[in-house]
Amino acid sequence: MSLRTSIATVCLSGTLTDKLHAAAEAGFDGVEVFEPDLVASAAGPEEVAALARRLGLTLDLYQPFRDAEGVTEEEFADVLRRARAKFRLMQRLGVDTMLVCSNVGTATIDDDEVSASQLRRLGEAAAEHGVRLAFEALAWGRYVDDYRRAWRIVELADHPAVGTCLDSFHILSRGHDPAGIEEIPGEKIFFLQLADAPALTMDVLSWSRHHRLFPGEGAFDLPAFLGHVLRAGYDGPLSLEVFNDTFRQTEVLRTARQARRSLTWLEDQVARLPDPPVRADGPTRLPDAAPPTDVDFVEVKAEDAGAVDVLLRQLGFDFRGRHRSKPVRLWTQGRARVICNEQQARDWSPTLAAVGFEVADPAAAAARARLLQAPPVFRRTLAGELDLAAFRAPDGTEVFLAGPADGDAAWVREFEDGEPPADAPLLTGVDHVNLAQPWQRFDEAVLFYSSVLALDAGAGQDVAAPTGLVRSQIVCSADHAVRLALNVAPLAFDHPDGFPQHVAFTTDDVLAVARRARERGLRPLPVPASYYDDLQARFDLPDATLEEYAGLGILHDRDGAGEFTHFYTETVGGVFFEVVQRRGGYEGYGAPNAPVRLAAQHERSRRPGW
Amino acid sequence: MSLRTSIATVCLSGTLTDKLHAAAEAGFDGVEVFEPDLVASAAGPEEVAALARRLGLTLDLYQPFRDAEGVTEEEFADVLRRARAKFRLMQRLGVDTMLVCSNVGTATIDDDEVSASQLRRLGEAAAEHGVRLAFEALAWGRYVDDYRRAWRIVELADHPAVGTCLDSFHILSRGHDPAGIEEIPGEKIFFLQLADAPALTMDVLSWSRHHRLFPGEGAFDLPAFLGHVLRAGYDGPLSLEVFNDTFRQTEVLRTARQARRSLTWLEDQVARLPDPPVRADGPTRLPDAAPPTDVDFVEVKAEDAGAVDVLLRQLGFDFRGRHRSKPVRLWTQGRARVICNEQQARDWSPTLAAVGFEVADPAAAAARARLLQAPPVFRRTLAGELDLAAFRAPDGTEVFLAGPADGDAAWVREFEDGEPPADAPLLTGVDHVNLAQPWQRFDEAVLFYSSVLALDAGAGQDVAAPTGLVRSQIVCSADHAVRLALNVAPLAFDHPDGFPQHVAFTTDDVLAVARRARERGLRPLPVPASYYDDLQARFDLPDATLEEYAGLGILHDRDGAGEFTHFYTETVGGVFFEVVQRRGGYEGYGAPNAPVRLAAQHERSRRPGW
Repeated sequence: MSLRTSIATVCLSGTLTDKLHAAAEAGFDGVEVFEPDLVASAAGPEEVAALARRLGLTLDLYQPFRDAEGVTEEEFADVLRRARAKFRLMQRLGVDTMLVCSNVGTATIDDDEVSASQLRRLGEAAAEHGVRLAFEALAWGRYVDDYRRAWRIVELADHPAVGTCLDSFHILSRGHDPAGIEEIPGEKIFFLQLADAPALTMDVLSWSRHHRLFPGEGAFDLPAFLGHVLRAGYDGPLSLEVFNDTFRQTEVLRTARQARRSLTWLEDQVARLPDPPVRADGPTRLPDAAPPTDVDFVEVKAEDAGAVDVLLRQLGFDFRGRHRSKPVRLWTQGRARVICNEQQARDWSPTLAAVGFEVADPAAAAARARLLQAPPVFRRTLAGELDLAAFRAPDGTEVFLAGPADGDAAWVREFEDGEPPADAPLLTGVDHVNLAQPWQRFDEAVLFYSSVLALDAGAGQDVAAPTGLVRSQIVCSADHAVRLALNVAPLAFDHPDGFPQHVAFTTDDVLAVARRARERGLRPLPVPASYYDDLQARFDLPDATLEEYAGLGILHDRDGAGEFTHFYTETVGGVFFEVVQRRGGYEGYGAPNAPVRLAAQHERSRRPGW
Repeated sequence: MSLRTSIATVCLSGTLTDKLHAAAEAGFDGVEVFEPDLVASAAGPEEVAALARRLGLTLDLYQPFRDAEGVTEEEFADVLRRARAKFRLMQRLGVDTMLVCSNVGTATIDDDEVSASQLRRLGEAAAEHGVRLAFEALAWGRYVDDYRRAWRIVELADHPAVGTCLDSFHILSRGHDPAGIEEIPGEKIFFLQLADAPALTMDVLSWSRHHRLFPGEGAFDLPAFLGHVLRAGYDGPLSLEVFNDTFRQTEVLRTARQARRSLTWLEDQVARLPDPPVRADGPTRLPDAAPPTDVDFVEVKAEDAGAVDVLLRQLGFDFRGRHRSKPVRLWTQGRARVICNEQQARDWSPTLAAVGFEVADPAAAAARARLLQAPPVFRRTLAGELDLAAFRAPDGTEVFLAGPADGDAAWVREFEDGEPPADAPLLTGVDHVNLAQPWQRFDEAVLFYSSVLALDAGAGQDVAAPTGLVRSQIVCSADHAVRLALNVAPLAFDHPDGFPQHVAFTTDDVLAVARRARERGLRPLPVPASYYDDLQARFDLPDATLEEYAGLGILHDRDGAGEFTHFYTETVGGVFFEVVQRRGGYEGYGAPNAPVRLAAQHERSRRPGW
């Protein structure tokens, strides 16, 4: 049993009927009807009401009603006339709660008694139509911009049809302490709207109208917020109201599922609070799932993965054989495992297609993923072969969940006729995997990796490429054993192989790896001489070191905690590899070097036959 | 003779050599070398210097040098070491001026004397290498964030190799009064960086890094700013430093030309100041050009424009005949003229291809456009036919410049075998033309229309469509005789006919036009019943009026100044028409109705055979 869920139609793209279909399909219990969606809908109120009934959706809220209180009595007469027209409409729709926003445009009287008196009279008119009013403080209300003041006015109005509406954005964006919510009687909280948001420093109106996110995608502490609301005794739906430029234009069912996933995640987080609010209907915990402990494997898919085989050999990987039933090859070195998959890859140039993660309890992790509506991936598996649960990440990457292994993973035994692994591998594992994200999927990806895989999202940053800024965000496990870099290419980026993705391997001796690779014929990504001039200016490195770095295409970075030394292979199709050595407590990714890498890749991509 | 111009390489996309080629081709005299562009460049300093020489470009500035002053003496030793490495590099490049930014990261000493002493010693080292330092206050400098303080420190440093750099963004974004610039001796202003920006309320660092614009595209008063700088006696180049997410990724030569156009516009604006600074080399005025006085014609282009002919007939247009030498037809009503052009339009569905403007002096307007590097359009013209100057707007629309006419424009006589115009036309002219803009071209379009056609850009707004937010911006003549709406479709919008564009015609009796059109078989864009319910709630219109509006698909808006009543045709290809009646001083465009229109169009577009 879970808490009831709802979503404002403004969160979704398409017509009002599209939105209702998608909300129902994604598993919501109800919707908030955003007035402009109804006004623009070819389907009128009776048709919308009937469709909602057929789909099993409740219509939980009609919103917004603006400029209602704090006005002159002359203006209030027109407010009442407007409101009565909306109450009649709500009866046709079958919605019993209307959102009344604190006045932004027409208020001239900054007086709680006046606002309360006007709300009371609106409440009296509402009650005649079986309607109740949920009064909400907008963060930019002219006089009422704090939920505590909105609640004082509701108390003063003292009418059974007048309560308050709480919106996490309006409260948390202003930095107001949500603990005070617990002092509001639950039955007077008529409605709850939830939205997350990134930490931005900008005017709160633009922040609200363009940048809201679903819970778990932003920087607000929504589990704590919701804890306060539930402890106050609120028993209405958890309803999402997210104004977001991207969600308004992306595929409606996909966004609805993303939205629904965010509430499942949030409910689980609330259930895990130190002092969780307890009710008959929730909050409900998901199966426990610790973050992955390691990258089990990465898979490169291509019609012909031969160029990848060459790179892996140059980097010192051992060929461990062919899969016994599929056109798939395995290369390993230490705990780094790369699968080259040529199955159903007609016309594919090399691309990063899958990442396997080692998790403590694959069954629990898979159950959790299913409850979060992660779309499952099916792969043909023969008797005796390991059947790993797999899901499709928002960018299309397949995510596999494998159990922990000492030494070789269990599925490695399905590969035959290979070499034994070498004794002292120079590469020891995977440092990070860099996955390109379509711009429309980025927020969904952050939620996917943080909810399904329990990874933590760090701060994002922009990296300058010759083709524009690349938005980059790390998601990683608390112990940094698993790190993913999610990169959004510049909008105008357009290449048939897509924006390059890569796997960075760990070593304790990057020079040795680079020298061996060079002996085996590797041509590292070329690094310009000016880079080494700058490196000398920055770090005052010895000439001999710089010379060796330049000869091997090695880049370097340093921060207060330690050092980072690395090199890149050239790109084949949409994939390249990196080898990294970390010293001390350096936890970055060589960000100052990323523009140099991107420029070199851009330069090479214009000389494809080189 | 014009002022010398320069552009920072960070404004442009591609490699450093791409940027140099584009800057030269667009007509810049020099460039600022943005250090990260050089560090990432395969071409080293000697090659870059030689290329610049071949292209006739000077290398005007090396930038930025950070974290230079306000540090401990121990740290300053490393600053000097770093700086010397850069001075040597600058000698290899042949650049003699380095930008030193006020300290953001490492300053711990908030003392002008300390900063001045450190700048002086940097200046002494610089002088040994023939380099001079231009010290600039960043708007977010830790201690030095005001150009007046930066200048005080330069004065204190009192070294011939130490001067100041002024950046319009850092000064105007903080609201600092630029008049004080005139107190700085011109020879101590070592460099000038120019950037415009939209009026945004957000942290100044993000505003600067992502949203700068070229002069004329934003909200800053750059003519006044530059006036102060020139009056101070500055005689270096006008250099653009514009960090902009879009320009970083768009086609490099196109952006360079846009940038160069912005300086031509700016110089003209400065020359028109009430108290213009006067120098031997400028500022130079462009030919005078008043904004257009009317829309002369709009042209719809299609392989088969028959469906457009039908709509025009239903709206009451008179068929004025075929062009004597081209497959082109003319329809007129009052001063509204629509050309249907089927020339070289294979596979084109109807699209708005050209707009003709009536200008007082077409020759001067065309000369001005050419000096602003507007790309010319050539059309085949036979002897005896009027040869109108034409240019291609950033979105591809062809812009024609015609002289003023009483009654029929002169070119109308080239059309033969048509009907005579009716006596009392219901439509009297063109109210506005709505042109879709690719997102990459939007800022360029604002600059194009404001500089080439001398139209004013108003405030933009977002309009909600079922497929996302549409960004809409009006550019119009001061007397509102010519109004264009520039609309950017949501990024994910994808339709083979493009985002619909339209022409709105003016009438004094929209009901009569709608009734006549209905009699002639027009099906107006359907407006949902819920719209009229809402209209009643908003404006309390009489039932009979609402019923007539509903029957004719008429929409309505009202503001403090007046009223706006209008209807839309359905869309054919990528074009539709609107008929508008303005009453009183209403100067808007029915913005509250735009989402209803967009929703209805979306609904219809999914039922193409309807």
